[in-house]
Amino acid sequence: MSEHFTPVSTLGEFGIIQRMSDRLVDLPRSSGLIEGIGDDAAVYKVSEGTLHVITTDALIEGVHFDRTFIPMSFLGFKSISVNVSDVVAMNAKPLYATIALGIPRNMSVEMLDGLYDGIKMACKKYGMELVGGDTTTAHALYISITVVGEVAERDVVFRRGANVGDFLCVTGDVGGAYAGLKVLLDQRQALKDLGEDYEPDLEALQYVIQRQLRPNARLDMIEAFKKAGIRPTSMIDISDGIASEVHHIAIRSGVGATVRIPALPFDPETRLVADQFMDDIDAYALFGGEDYELLFTVDPSEVSKVDALEGVSVIGNIEEAARGVRAYSPETGLLPLHPAGYQHFDPNEVNPDDFDLPPSKNGAK
Amino acid sequence: MSEHFTPVSTLGEFGIIQRMSDRLVDLPRSSGLIEGIGDDAAVYKVSEGTLHVITTDALIEGVHFDRTFIPMSFLGFKSISVNVSDVVAMNAKPLYATIALGIPRNMSVEMLDGLYDGIKMACKKYGMELVGGDTTTAHALYISITVVGEVAERDVVFRRGANVGDFLCVTGDVGGAYAGLKVLLDQRQALKDLGEDYEPDLEALQYVIQRQLRPNARLDMIEAFKKAGIRPTSMIDISDGIASEVHHIAIRSGVGATVRIPALPFDPETRLVADQFMDDIDAYALFGGEDYELLFTVDPSEVSKVDALEGVSVIGNIEEAARGVRAYSPETGLLPLHPAGYQHFDPNEVNPDDFDLPPSKNGAK
Repeated sequence: MSEHFTPVSTLGEFGIIQRMSDRLVDLPRSSGLIEGIGDDAAVYKVSEGTLHVITTDALIEGVHFDRTFIPMSFLGFKSISVNVSDVVAMNAKPLYATIALGIPRNMSVEMLDGLYDGIKMACKKYGMELVGGDTTTAHALYISITVVGEVAERDVVFRRGANVGDFLCVTGDVGGAYAGLKVLLDQRQALKDLGEDYEPDLEALQYVIQRQLRPNARLDMIEAFKKAGIRPTSMIDISDGIASEVHHIAIRSGVGATVRIPALPFDPETRLVADQFMDDIDAYALFGGEDYELLFTVDPSEVSKVDALEGVSVIGNIEEAARGVRAYSPETGLLPLHPAGYQHFDPNEVNPDDFDLPPSKNGAK
Repeated sequence: MSEHFTPVSTLGEFGIIQRMSDRLVDLPRSSGLIEGIGDDAAVYKVSEGTLHVITTDALIEGVHFDRTFIPMSFLGFKSISVNVSDVVAMNAKPLYATIALGIPRNMSVEMLDGLYDGIKMACKKYGMELVGGDTTTAHALYISITVVGEVAERDVVFRRGANVGDFLCVTGDVGGAYAGLKVLLDQRQALKDLGEDYEPDLEALQYVIQRQLRPNARLDMIEAFKKAGIRPTSMIDISDGIASEVHHIAIRSGVGATVRIPALPFDPETRLVADQFMDDIDAYALFGGEDYELLFTVDPSEVSKVDALEGVSVIGNIEEAARGVRAYSPETGLLPLHPAGYQHFDPNEVNPDDFDLPPSKNGAK
């Protein structure tokens, strides 16, 4: 079809999305669309005062997970959570999901049932319904989910709303999913060394492993925000690590930011893993990703309400754009913080002949 | 995870969807959901008098297409059309689409651009917008599209509304997509015989090849229905062949049906191909699939309006359930018509090591 062959890897993940945006830019814009490509979810108006949001995310075997290490029910749960997380990041409530499944021939009915059970558990947890599906043969297990959510027009939150002077906050604890990945990779190595006799131990360090394999979307937090009368000025979910997500907010809002490293909230189990591997725990949070917590900004007038909420930490400040995105710690002072979060698209990382890959490549720098 | 291994192939495509429905059946049902899994698209209420519909369909390299034979822009166009077709089958207008792309490493930026161009052309044609995307590495090209559409509550049409006495109608002509597949498979054989010097000829028999590679969704027809004051009692799009689709309407509506074979509308080019291959042209229409025309039923009081519409054929009647689904021709009389349309899921048909497959497996019995 074309004489030229420029490898897609030259674009990178953001480049591919940007190219899609650019090539589609002169499409007629309907009056109902409020936000297209460029936030966690697209937003459109469905009636006076009510918006819907829509998001799509796929999990592919050998790229996002290794079937040896993730129980099928966890995988089903995770495939819903990662999408609900994007809906929640718009301050919206999930309503409906559709699924497109690509099923390889080495998959059993029992595995399929496990997958459905996990999907069902997640749908129940988030109070939503699976309303449509497409199934087809595939070369590897492919799970593509779309979730539609709802939010009142006055409540919607975008990445682009942060203002200079706002406080930067995060829900829950961070870096745990990457700690879980480290543990699983270590077990995988043991499996290689010990052969088929080795059985992966999902009981030890259960918290961080569950953070990696069965993450929760923080729907509970946006309900807590509502109850406490907090309306974030901007919000994003943490799929690629705090460093990358702060950059998204900064770029879309036209601001700078400082992340105070000592304020990053860690679970004791995450500390244990980082100590075991003699790793810098801060890097788990900044560059690890897949925590599916919410990173958000609030007006200074609301910071007392945030302080009163359990499970929310103030970790920094929004500043003028000229200052860029920086990290502060007493040891290093202020340093530029690069968005070194994992970018999914690197064609060289997947070899179709070799599914022998980590459970997740997120953060696997 | 499980001691048992029952091959998924024992379920078949409809079995997989049914199993999903069964396992998810006790999920809390929201008040807004009107139709879940089981029609062309799911339907939910967004405001008084207004419904949204949502559908997901994936195209996978080696299963639904062969990159050697389909220009990337056609593939992009088709991936949108097959989804819009499901929206149109609910008598709804498409509004927004999201895409999840799995991109293999042997794909170039030029091919990606071609794909986007086709998607853009289709979005323009159908007056809709691509609002979200997820891209990731994959082992083969994977395109999963979700489309949201809108319809007034009084206008929505389901598979389940056919009544005894209704007329069975079809838009456009049928069997063309399968004729196109035959031509392409023939060219593929020539490619094998002649080696790398052979170039596929997409100009000869252009109509049927385009029916296969670049199908149109019949949004124009539902606009024509509206103008003519026709409200189908039931409707479905033809993705798996008329035999299979009539069965869907019959089962969901609790009725029987007779298809009058001599009334099936064919394009002259489809006849030419069937003659060339000495095939039974009726089988192209009944079992071929991928025509993406609309099969619908109307009340007898509306049949004069249907007759007045260009490009619509009355091809049969809705009867009592006890009569089953039958085909009539002067040569054979009345015979039972089996739903032998292609079922996508047969794990044995895809070998991950062998992408050497027809451009589409639809109808490739």
